[in-house]
Amino acid sequence: MDYFSTDFTLGILGGGQLGKMLLYETRKWDVKTKVLDASEAAPCRIACDEFVLGSLMDYDTVYQFGKDVDVLTIEIENVNTDALEALENEGVTVYPPTHSLRTIQNKAKQKLFYVDSDIPTAPFSRFAYASEIEDSVNNGGISLPFVWKAAQFGYDGQGVKVVRSLEDLKDLPQGECIAEELIPFKNELAVIVARNPKGEVVTYPVVEMEFHPEANQVEYVLCPARIPDAVAQKARDIALQVAEKLEMTGLLAVEMFLTEDDEILVNEVAPRPHNSGHYSIEGSYTNQFEQHLRAILDLPLGDTQSKQAAVMVNLVGAEGHTGPVHYQNMAEILAIPGVTPHIYGKKETRPFRKMGHVTIVDNEIERAREKAQQVKQRIGVISQ
Amino acid sequence: MDYFSTDFTLGILGGGQLGKMLLYETRKWDVKTKVLDASEAAPCRIACDEFVLGSLMDYDTVYQFGKDVDVLTIEIENVNTDALEALENEGVTVYPPTHSLRTIQNKAKQKLFYVDSDIPTAPFSRFAYASEIEDSVNNGGISLPFVWKAAQFGYDGQGVKVVRSLEDLKDLPQGECIAEELIPFKNELAVIVARNPKGEVVTYPVVEMEFHPEANQVEYVLCPARIPDAVAQKARDIALQVAEKLEMTGLLAVEMFLTEDDEILVNEVAPRPHNSGHYSIEGSYTNQFEQHLRAILDLPLGDTQSKQAAVMVNLVGAEGHTGPVHYQNMAEILAIPGVTPHIYGKKETRPFRKMGHVTIVDNEIERAREKAQQVKQRIGVISQ
Repeated sequence: MDYFSTDFTLGILGGGQLGKMLLYETRKWDVKTKVLDASEAAPCRIACDEFVLGSLMDYDTVYQFGKDVDVLTIEIENVNTDALEALENEGVTVYPPTHSLRTIQNKAKQKLFYVDSDIPTAPFSRFAYASEIEDSVNNGGISLPFVWKAAQFGYDGQGVKVVRSLEDLKDLPQGECIAEELIPFKNELAVIVARNPKGEVVTYPVVEMEFHPEANQVEYVLCPARIPDAVAQKARDIALQVAEKLEMTGLLAVEMFLTEDDEILVNEVAPRPHNSGHYSIEGSYTNQFEQHLRAILDLPLGDTQSKQAAVMVNLVGAEGHTGPVHYQNMAEILAIPGVTPHIYGKKETRPFRKMGHVTIVDNEIERAREKAQQVKQRIGVISQ
Repeated sequence: MDYFSTDFTLGILGGGQLGKMLLYETRKWDVKTKVLDASEAAPCRIACDEFVLGSLMDYDTVYQFGKDVDVLTIEIENVNTDALEALENEGVTVYPPTHSLRTIQNKAKQKLFYVDSDIPTAPFSRFAYASEIEDSVNNGGISLPFVWKAAQFGYDGQGVKVVRSLEDLKDLPQGECIAEELIPFKNELAVIVARNPKGEVVTYPVVEMEFHPEANQVEYVLCPARIPDAVAQKARDIALQVAEKLEMTGLLAVEMFLTEDDEILVNEVAPRPHNSGHYSIEGSYTNQFEQHLRAILDLPLGDTQSKQAAVMVNLVGAEGHTGPVHYQNMAEILAIPGVTPHIYGKKETRPFRKMGHVTIVDNEIERAREKAQQVKQRIGVISQ
C-alpha cells in the first residue's frame, strides 16, 4: 500500500483537538482523511478531506464510516468497539487493534491486565456497582482513603475522585468502578511508546507532570523529567513492556507514579497521541502526531530525541467563566522567546475546559519552567 | 482587533503550497481564513474556512473577495494590485502594502528602486520590448553575456535566461524586460526579514542556496550559510535596509549574490514566506509562516534563532515524467533520523515542478548536508 499516493484514505474516529493536531501531519504528507465526530463544531471540521457527523458510540455509524477507509484510527477511546471488531474481521486495518483498545477502555479490565502481565500498579478492588463500596469499607475489605475510578468513559480528570470519608461516596455515579489504594508519590511521570505493525518500537524521553491542586488536571508537562537517569530508564522499560504485552500498534501514552521509594507504578494508559506529548511538536525531532502516523502506516519510526528542553502549559477555562471564549494577553506571551500557543478552536469556554496549550522551548529546562509560569500567570481564558 | 477571537477573518490571495503551510499556522491559532485561487485542485482547498474559486489577476474577483476580510495577504506576487489599492482605500488592511508589492511585482521597477535606495545590485539596462535588446548589443549599449529577465510574472526560474549569443535571444518572450550584467559569484544567499506595522523588525540567519546546474532552481538550502560572520552580518544589514526602504509589513525574503570579492549584491525579493525559509518549520524557534502571521496581525515578532542546523531539499518532478505523481522510496528516507518530508498535494508531476520539500535537521550543518544528499539520491518524484 502506498500511503503517499492519492487513493489511500485514513479514517479518524473523533474530531477533537488531538485529531486536529493529527491533521497538521496528514496535511504535511498529503494523506487523505475522513473524520467522524458527533459535534458540528468539532475542531477537525475543516482540514480533513471528508467530515461525517455522527456518534462514535453507535454501531451502525462507526461501521458505515469505517467500511471504505484503508486504515482506521482513533483520537479518543470512547468508540464502539463492536463495530471496530466487525470492520477488522472484514479486512479493514484498525490501529490501535480492537483487542488492545478493549483492554484499555475499561479501567477494571486494564488493571487486571497489569496484574496478569506483571506490570507494577497500585493495589485495587473492583466493584460491579459503586453501591458495593460502602459495604466493603464497613467490612474491612478496603480502607479509607482510596481513589475511586469509574470503569468506563472517564476523561480529563472526570471519573476519578479521592474518597476520604463515606460522605464522599454519596454523589458518585453508579456503575462499574474500582477503588485503588492511595499511594503517596513524589512525581507523576509519562512515557510515550510508538510501535508499528512490524513490532518495531521506540520510547520518548520521560516527562514529568505537575497537577493543578484543585482540578485534578495536568497544569505543566516537563520534558525531560527532573529525575535520575536510572529511574528514567526503568520508566521507559516498563512503558515498553506495557506496549508489547498489549500488542499495540500506534502510540501508547503510559502514565506512571514515582513513589517515595523510587518505585514505578503504572497508573493508566491511552492508545493515541496524548496531552503529555504535545511538547514534542516544538521540542522533538519527530512529534507524537507524525510518529502516530508513521506507526499506523507501517513506516519506519522517527527519532524520539528532543531538540530542546520543553515545558507545556495547558490552557484551561478560568473559574467563573462560561460562554464565548476570549484569550487575554496573547500578545504579551508571544513576546517571550520560545513560546508557541496552540488554540484548539472550541468556541465556548467553561471552568477547567481544555481550550489550548502553550509550549515553551529553551536550552535549559529550569528556564523553560520559569517562562511557563509567566505564561500561566499572564494568560487568561475567559468569556467575553 | 482581537486576532484570537472568532469573528476575525484573514484573506489569502493564492492557494498553493505556501498558502497551505501558512494554513498550518492559522489552524494552530484558530484564525479564520478565506482563500482565493483559480485552481479547483489548489492545495489550500481544504484547511481554510472558506475557499473561493477565481482569478487572482481579475480586478472584480479580488475586490469582491477582499471586501469583507479584516486583513488581506498574499502567498504569490501575481495578483491584481489595482483591486488591492481600492481595498486599501476603503480601509481593508493589506499586507504587504500595495505600494511595496507594486515595486516588487515589476522587476525593472524593483531594480530602479535598489538604485534609488543605494542598495547594492548588479548593473542592468531596462527595455520596453525584448526586440530592443539586439540593437543595444550591436551598438555596444550592453555586452554579452548577460542575464535576461522578464519584468513581470516570472516564477520558479521561469522568466530568467543567461544570454551568451544573439542566437539565445530568438525564443525570448516579447514585452518589458531587463538585461543584467552576469556577475561571477561564489554563493547565492538569502535573508528573511519580518516587519510588523509598528516597524519592529527582525532578520533570520543567512541561508545558502545551492542550485541545480540545469534547471536554474534551488536544490538545497543550508542554514546557517557556511560564510564568515562579518559577511553574514553585512547580508542581514542589507536585507534590513531593503525591508525598511520598501516599507514592508509581513515577511520579505531577500535573495543575494556573494561575489568573488565578498561584495553582496541584492538579486531579487519576495514579499511573503519563501522557499528559502521552509527549513524554519523544523529548524527555528519561530517558523517563517508563524512569523508572517505575527507580523501581519501586529503581534510581537518571534525569535528567529535556530534550534538546530538545517538543510532543505526541494522535491521536484523527475525529468521524463509527466502525469499522476508517485513518490519513490519514501520509507527509506523516513528511516534517516532528523528527516521530515512535506508533500504539497499536487496531483500531477512534470519535469522540475515543485512537488514538496524535505527538511533535515542535525546538530552539525555538514552532517545535515550529507543526509540531504542521501535523500536527494534516493527519493524519486515520478509518474505512475
